[in-house]
Amino acid sequence: MKLCFFDDQRLGVVIDGTVRDVTGVLDRLPAYRPPLPRFDPVVAALPELRDALLEAARAAPGRPVADVRFHSPVANPGKVVAAPVNYQAHLDEVAADPATFSRAHAVRIQESGLFLKATSSVVGTSAGVTLRFPDRRSDHEIELVAVIGKPGSNIAEADALDHVAGYTLGLDMTLRGKEERSFRKSIDSYTVLGPWLVTADEFGDPADVALSVRVNGQLRQEARTKDLVLSVRSLIAFASSFYTLHPGDILMTGTPEGVGPVAPGDVLTAFVERVGTAEVAIRSA
Amino acid sequence: MKLCFFDDQRLGVVIDGTVRDVTGVLDRLPAYRPPLPRFDPVVAALPELRDALLEAARAAPGRPVADVRFHSPVANPGKVVAAPVNYQAHLDEVAADPATFSRAHAVRIQESGLFLKATSSVVGTSAGVTLRFPDRRSDHEIELVAVIGKPGSNIAEADALDHVAGYTLGLDMTLRGKEERSFRKSIDSYTVLGPWLVTADEFGDPADVALSVRVNGQLRQEARTKDLVLSVRSLIAFASSFYTLHPGDILMTGTPEGVGPVAPGDVLTAFVERVGTAEVAIRSA
Repeated sequence: MKLCFFDDQRLGVVIDGTVRDVTGVLDRLPAYRPPLPRFDPVVAALPELRDALLEAARAAPGRPVADVRFHSPVANPGKVVAAPVNYQAHLDEVAADPATFSRAHAVRIQESGLFLKATSSVVGTSAGVTLRFPDRRSDHEIELVAVIGKPGSNIAEADALDHVAGYTLGLDMTLRGKEERSFRKSIDSYTVLGPWLVTADEFGDPADVALSVRVNGQLRQEARTKDLVLSVRSLIAFASSFYTLHPGDILMTGTPEGVGPVAPGDVLTAFVERVGTAEVAIRSA
Repeated sequence: MKLCFFDDQRLGVVIDGTVRDVTGVLDRLPAYRPPLPRFDPVVAALPELRDALLEAARAAPGRPVADVRFHSPVANPGKVVAAPVNYQAHLDEVAADPATFSRAHAVRIQESGLFLKATSSVVGTSAGVTLRFPDRRSDHEIELVAVIGKPGSNIAEADALDHVAGYTLGLDMTLRGKEERSFRKSIDSYTVLGPWLVTADEFGDPADVALSVRVNGQLRQEARTKDLVLSVRSLIAFASSFYTLHPGDILMTGTPEGVGPVAPGDVLTAFVERVGTAEVAIRSA
């Protein structure tokens, strides 16, 4: 199942290139009074909502995906966990260009650990990316993204994929410079997710998935997740050895070689196999 | 006004050393259906809830603060923003001890920028801190914490304090090691807030506030916020030059010199002037 939020925060299921409005199914969830839950209640409830979502989707009229605006498929991520230089070829390009990449970043992910992006930086694919500092370089970084569905701490690699609700496409937009990653990468709109979440049952094994990004039609990054230094399983185990993962937490698995600058007016064509393709516009502030 | 969450997530107002249960006032807020708001609805509504909270507090029976368990006074922080080495004397101690502190951290905050802590690391003062890696060093870092009340982006220093809902005491517990700050400092329970939020009108100007921490009665850190490298105003302006601040966002303003290791069984006595004192227990995992 492909699940999305679209237009005026409607919940949708994508079938055969059309979006079916299934917002009514959310009435099965309780209404919350503050203090609110510290996890995404839609993602957490997906197993129990699944049949109702499919039934509602079959009955609903479809609108072409080209006619709707896609928001982040996860509305309430608790944290956005991201993997630094997690493809060997990207590590090589970082190490080769100290003028662009901080020297401190040319280290193995096992040493650097994972970093965080602000949840306030999360947008859907239709929002596009707004460059906040036009005089500084901002790069595209295409990634496979896993969305946590089941809470866990100290999760074993063997069990890790049981904790994934689904997968989506992500752009970890990155301002280059000396600041900490968690600052430079947390600019509003610098975490693009979408256009929809593909549930784990439909997506299957994330171990060998193609991903790519084109800038104005030119291929810039292209890789397969089999070349990840730490696999999705390993990343979940690693992250959860430090902190509890909660439903709706976002795991950005790292970007391959070929990162490069974007400019206002550019259009990114981002692709993750089994998710799909999204066009993402780059704008000036 | 001193506002807290206590026991079974009851909302309380602290008056004369007693906690008054004002949970009923939350009925004035709407019940939310997913997708949930991406900010803390209680903090956002404080200006309009203020009179009702005070009225309810006067009418409610009081329980001694020693008899209740304090949770984080902000139930739904969207992000936890923190300032690295923001007292000159702490920068000096970091630079002098490269074996303990990463060399990359002995840089000025204006260059390193701010970092993030996972919201899943946030606990109240009664929860205590659970050391996740008993063989590695974890340090206490006492801080003044500002809680954002009004959203803003590119906030001017002159207007910055208008965006603060209130202040609280924070412990930015820190695992030492090579990993990124946003990983090492995001362990469950490594962000201690509380015991209550002091609203900005009662707290006044944060420019010269005393703070300290004792470990088993021994004074370890003691400073005043007048010695911050970047003041609360500057930090808000700096943070909001990168990303939008939302109600409930947490701003940890940095820790002074004197950071040091803690061990299971230790009791921290944390103090921030105009907030109060909290005893925080250190436990083994």
